Amino acid sequence: MERVCFESKNCSVARAMDVIGDWWSILIVLEAMRGTCHFDQFQTNLEISKGILSKRLKSLQEHGVLVRVESEKKVRRVEYRLTPKGSALHTVLIALMQWGDDWLNARSGAPVVLYNAKNGAELAKLTLQDTRGITVEPDDLRVKAGPGADRHTCARFAAGEIQA
Amino acid sequence: MERVCFESKNCSVARAMDVIGDWWSILIVLEAMRGTCHFDQFQTNLEISKGILSKRLKSLQEHGVLVRVESEKKVRRVEYRLTPKGSALHTVLIALMQWGDDWLNARSGAPVVLYNAKNGAELAKLTLQDTRGITVEPDDLRVKAGPGADRHTCARFAAGEIQA
Repeated sequence: MERVCFESKNCSVARAMDVIGDWWSILIVLEAMRGTCHFDQFQTNLEISKGILSKRLKSLQEHGVLVRVESEKKVRRVEYRLTPKGSALHTVLIALMQWGDDWLNARSGAPVVLYNAKNGAELAKLTLQDTRGITVEPDDLRVKAGPGADRHTCARFAAGEIQA
Repeated sequence: MERVCFESKNCSVARAMDVIGDWWSILIVLEAMRGTCHFDQFQTNLEISKGILSKRLKSLQEHGVLVRVESEKKVRRVEYRLTPKGSALHTVLIALMQWGDDWLNARSGAPVVLYNAKNGAELAKLTLQDTRGITVEPDDLRVKAGPGADRHTCARFAAGEIQA
């Protein structure tokens, strides 16, 4: 399959695609969020080949999503842990999971449920809110050029694009 | 690049990857959310080849994310519009955008800003909350088998996995 580089694009979604825009990278991050940290655990849980796993782990390290740590006290010495940048992907993964629960598993129900360890309450559905705390419906979303807009983005979003 | 089918996996993220798990599909959905509906508009805005665009539009239709509508009143007759399933991806795309804004564009600032058409207020950052309205830190997230868990998922998440 073709691989395109979006790094130069003036779009945060396109640039995010450069870092985590393939199935395996997303699923590796999901595993790491579930506490998986050793190479062979990733391999077993994801049923992924060693070669592909190595390549993806390396790429996620290069992008600062995972960090490789040498542990001194255990037989399995190398651990892969999420950085703050990697941990910030929780929201993305949970949005994906909730969409999949709603639209792909609706008949059988959610395979897993997330909850707050502090009180046992289940995680609520992510909702779009504005800075005043008002829920925003997708139809009411609008987009405008931001502080990091280049000339092309400014031209496009000054031209009256309607939806977000 | 290898293409794996995750449809049979008992995991909503893996199954979501089957539907939108490549760069182009995500970016086509993003364009559709911004009001793009004609083939040539997608092509120009995404700088994508006709062949790849056709294939991705077809796949997104097969998965019920986009619908192809024949418009009778215009010269450009065919429009691609988001279905409710496709529109529900707003949260995923916005989570990706916010992560990219924070971690990939931090120096130059966000290329675009979303706001609520009803009052002009900007969109707030997505936050994880439990069903009692309490903000959940990633470290406090736990995972348990849900109503759609298969035997493997039940075994795994009964075995005391800690993080989500």
